[in-house]
Amino acid sequence: MIRQLIEKIQKTDAPICVGLDPMLSYIPETIVKNALEEYGETMQAAAEAVWQYNKAIIDHTWDLIPAVKPQVAMYEQFGLEGMRVYEKTVSYCQEKGLVVIGDVKRGDIGSTSAAYAAGHLGSVQIGSRRLSGFHADFITVNPYLGTDGVKPFVDVCSQEDKGIFVLVKTSNPSSGEFQDRLIDGRPLYEWVADKVVEWGEASMDGAYSNVGAVVGATYPEMSAVLRRQMPHTYFLVPGYGAQGGTAEDLKHCFNADGLGAIVNSSRGIIAAYKQEKYKTFGPEHFAEASRQAVLDMAADIRRVL
Amino acid sequence: MIRQLIEKIQKTDAPICVGLDPMLSYIPETIVKNALEEYGETMQAAAEAVWQYNKAIIDHTWDLIPAVKPQVAMYEQFGLEGMRVYEKTVSYCQEKGLVVIGDVKRGDIGSTSAAYAAGHLGSVQIGSRRLSGFHADFITVNPYLGTDGVKPFVDVCSQEDKGIFVLVKTSNPSSGEFQDRLIDGRPLYEWVADKVVEWGEASMDGAYSNVGAVVGATYPEMSAVLRRQMPHTYFLVPGYGAQGGTAEDLKHCFNADGLGAIVNSSRGIIAAYKQEKYKTFGPEHFAEASRQAVLDMAADIRRVL
Repeated sequence: MIRQLIEKIQKTDAPICVGLDPMLSYIPETIVKNALEEYGETMQAAAEAVWQYNKAIIDHTWDLIPAVKPQVAMYEQFGLEGMRVYEKTVSYCQEKGLVVIGDVKRGDIGSTSAAYAAGHLGSVQIGSRRLSGFHADFITVNPYLGTDGVKPFVDVCSQEDKGIFVLVKTSNPSSGEFQDRLIDGRPLYEWVADKVVEWGEASMDGAYSNVGAVVGATYPEMSAVLRRQMPHTYFLVPGYGAQGGTAEDLKHCFNADGLGAIVNSSRGIIAAYKQEKYKTFGPEHFAEASRQAVLDMAADIRRVL
Repeated sequence: MIRQLIEKIQKTDAPICVGLDPMLSYIPETIVKNALEEYGETMQAAAEAVWQYNKAIIDHTWDLIPAVKPQVAMYEQFGLEGMRVYEKTVSYCQEKGLVVIGDVKRGDIGSTSAAYAAGHLGSVQIGSRRLSGFHADFITVNPYLGTDGVKPFVDVCSQEDKGIFVLVKTSNPSSGEFQDRLIDGRPLYEWVADKVVEWGEASMDGAYSNVGAVVGATYPEMSAVLRRQMPHTYFLVPGYGAQGGTAEDLKHCFNADGLGAIVNSSRGIIAAYKQEKYKTFGPEHFAEASRQAVLDMAADIRRVL
């Protein structure tokens, strides 16, 4: 699956990924108002507003980008109706030819991780059929439980040509609280990185592994070290834009060949119309503003490669 | 919320929790067969079988226990239909007066954790109404992202009288890979425990905090240390029974007053009828076997307190 992602990155010349993390507060008022009028003050109304918002953004950006990254929490907050729109969004993006990275950050003991892997990446056996639940192409995985909590995801990567990105060094302000603590002179995230490399050897797909790493754009000096430590591991890089990471900060996430990383932006793209820079689009042209923000982000990143 | 849980533990004299983690392979053939006949080889059939199985177990055990712990992965594996049965199970258990611990192990950057907290514990604002998605009483939380990934859950605990159990030392074989690594002479899980204590001070509810800890039964020497380190933190203890933990192993999880821990058993209870010990019940009386297994487990644990 990493090979497919790389092909799409090369075709679009844009190592970027749009984070479909819809907060109701991002969605233009008219869309929310129409949904509330149609469905009342219900979860269904919220979910419908999210769907209309997502669909417009996808329709205006799909030809420019290789991948999207829906953050499942933003859908789970609306319960079942939210999860229905999560699945609908995954399906719609895949129909448009986009690689879908489900940002689910799952991870548990072995048998439980196997169930998550089946539900979010793979399939389950029901009678004589194999059926898929949320069917993303990649998902993000939390490593706190160690190898037996990650291996079931790696197995599905190999069996069904899927991929994962394991949290190594996250982009948030308190990520260092545990991740940066030194163990035998090296930070915890480097020990996690060693394991990600080891896990990844079981699922190589060309020059890179289907087992990637999440490496935040907000800590550039750390990403340089990790890039050297993990030459065959693709990085999913959150934190660009709204979270404070700049293109300059993330150039160390890439290998010399310009590959090795895909950079996510969520709010910076999907709520671009709220920024001073894109204000002239107005809320009614929010999706056009998102398109322009994608073009600007891709150019910004190409500049440093 | 921890106060409510403690009251129910005292009333039932059973510091135990039934893990509602239905695998299709646990469910008696007749139930699966009927569901397949009614709904075909579909996710709906799987979800219906899970629901019939859960309902029978709840109906046969609810009066003996304070709480249940559905593992959401076992529902997510069946996609939307699975999530529908997860919500239905949470609701049904709450109607029966049980405390529901949603074993979701979520955790992300701050704004994302806030969405998970809203969706699984709290509520979202839609127009003039506040609505709840999956509405568990407690959920489990992963600490890898540090304070800003956990605080939104703690806030909801305080605002809506809910609770969380943060992963400290898990029960699985490879839990030591990262959790046991020494940082300034102390294992990572003790550093996490320090933070759990600190986070918990913001949400005290009687003698204990709404912010609890997951401490595996499979590592008794570690739970003794943690018990002393976290006197006001309730422990959710997985790993009893099928995962290898014995009553003797988990006595150190309790305080001198007999409180301080709730022990989970999943397979050992819900698939009791498959054990040699409960074989005479037969698959048709699987729920009666589960009831007997609950009685036996409660007695086993009382014996060491």
